[in-house]
Amino acid sequence: MTKMQITAEPGVPQVLTTRVLHAPRNLVYRAFTEPDLLVQWLGPRKYAMTVDRFDLRDGGTWRYVHSDDAGNAFGFHGVFHGNASPDGIVQTFEFEGAPGHVSMDTVTFEERDGETTVRTNSVFQSVQARDAMVEAGMAGGMSEGYERLDELLARLVANS
Amino acid sequence: MTKMQITAEPGVPQVLTTRVLHAPRNLVYRAFTEPDLLVQWLGPRKYAMTVDRFDLRDGGTWRYVHSDDAGNAFGFHGVFHGNASPDGIVQTFEFEGAPGHVSMDTVTFEERDGETTVRTNSVFQSVQARDAMVEAGMAGGMSEGYERLDELLARLVANS
Repeated sequence: MTKMQITAEPGVPQVLTTRVLHAPRNLVYRAFTEPDLLVQWLGPRKYAMTVDRFDLRDGGTWRYVHSDDAGNAFGFHGVFHGNASPDGIVQTFEFEGAPGHVSMDTVTFEERDGETTVRTNSVFQSVQARDAMVEAGMAGGMSEGYERLDELLARLVANS
Repeated sequence: MTKMQITAEPGVPQVLTTRVLHAPRNLVYRAFTEPDLLVQWLGPRKYAMTVDRFDLRDGGTWRYVHSDDAGNAFGFHGVFHGNASPDGIVQTFEFEGAPGHVSMDTVTFEERDGETTVRTNSVFQSVQARDAMVEAGMAGGMSEGYERLDELLARLVANS
């Protein structure tokens, strides 16, 4: 199993991550852009995920909710920018528990020898906002999500 | 006349500016959010500006075009995030001549003794993208725009 690498330099309002997945790029891209697949892997295992909106076009909006067994629900939403493709997706990101804070994510997918490297680039309005997101467990949640994505991709490859 | 201060630190994909305007906050906010006023000051004097869209609500889009006498036209567009108010405006920004590059601007307005300090915070997807925008004359264009805004605000104050 590969591990997610994360870079969050002091004084820079940005987080970069890199993760290798053992699947071709088109399949990884599907897992990022088809809501039926997305809900099977995005985020920690303890949350059930529902997608409210996922309008994958320039200016289209997305929204999903993570819910736990205790009845807590956490909403997130944003706007897609530009035309998403396996080359990349650009979208803004807002956690509804922290209104007014907006970050912007760029995700790219690079295939080599049947493996796909996913790189995420998140920029924040300030270093403080970036640090708050890191301290809230951003890396752990993403890393656990990628482990679930490994499992989903293995199932999809086995069934293809 | 006051001058615009600009901060663009090495290695940080961000540009911060500060400018003091001799007008109350509500009037400055109007100049930023009413298309009829916006076209009178935003950007260098050599461009005529037309506003195509200006849907100032959460998720609403904006687009404007700068044109010069030689027939060149430069389009820009983006999406408003959150509810704009005199406390602040958050919006993404894309120059249509560089598709795929998106930045995110946060503008705040602070009034003190009848003057308003406007602060802009632009974050870019990379330091390279930030540097390209700075080298394209971002500071000069903004600074000249603020001089035009001084003149517009003086007219508005005189007529109020």
